[in-house]
Amino acid sequence: MQLTRAADYAVRVMIHLATLPPGTRVNRDTLAEAADVPAHFLAKVLQSLGHARLILAHRGISGGFSLAAPPEQISVLRVVEAIEGPIQLNVCLSVGGCGRQGWCPAHLVWAEAQAALTQVLGSASIAKLARESGGRRQDKVVYPWN
Amino acid sequence: MQLTRAADYAVRVMIHLATLPPGTRVNRDTLAEAADVPAHFLAKVLQSLGHARLILAHRGISGGFSLAAPPEQISVLRVVEAIEGPIQLNVCLSVGGCGRQGWCPAHLVWAEAQAALTQVLGSASIAKLARESGGRRQDKVVYPWN
Repeated sequence: MQLTRAADYAVRVMIHLATLPPGTRVNRDTLAEAADVPAHFLAKVLQSLGHARLILAHRGISGGFSLAAPPEQISVLRVVEAIEGPIQLNVCLSVGGCGRQGWCPAHLVWAEAQAALTQVLGSASIAKLARESGGRRQDKVVYPWN
Repeated sequence: MQLTRAADYAVRVMIHLATLPPGTRVNRDTLAEAADVPAHFLAKVLQSLGHARLILAHRGISGGFSLAAPPEQISVLRVVEAIEGPIQLNVCLSVGGCGRQGWCPAHLVWAEAQAALTQVLGSASIAKLARESGGRRQDKVVYPWN
């Protein structure tokens, strides 16, 4: 039960874009460096964010990637789900996933846990995180998974 | 970000054992049937629950598996962690997992989401779920993943 690396990277990318003036276009290499995302991983992450209409890809010399919506309107939950699909903490929570849900006592616990999780992720906006990141980074660090 | 099937099965097994009088020993086949866990999967689940000292394995003709502690003292979280290890919603939440945690705004969101999730799972006791399951099951159902 762990977030995928791609979802973690996607949140970093979105926070970085949200720290910039609205409409700013960032090329792939700069984004990989700024958000500390391995370049070979970034293409897939950007593709998923584009499909979810969270970022726009601009072609040409002045091209690059920009946010597709105001970051105040984008939650961490939305970014995670753009990568992983709708959060389903257990198979039984998917539509038609389990015939037991009418009586299974564990089903209610999984549903409550999922609600608690999505409530936290859904109420954290990318804009807020971008504001909180301002000036806090001291130096470049190396991550064990990069 | 989804619970493993093994953890789901482990919770079912524990709930079933908790519905029985204290000290009741149940053999593997009966447990597989009662908790709707595929027999080939059950051995590994029982082994993990035994290692975590949540169940006891008794040998001999009157052998079988029983709870190792009162179900009031066993939470869903403890059962899940017996199978999956400590819940870490993101790699960055593990000890020494990330050098960014001092300033990364996303780190706080992951930590808060994990706390919300573990609070729900930690406060749901197996005994409570066993009481809630009493008499609610109408008939045998077939699960899509069995």
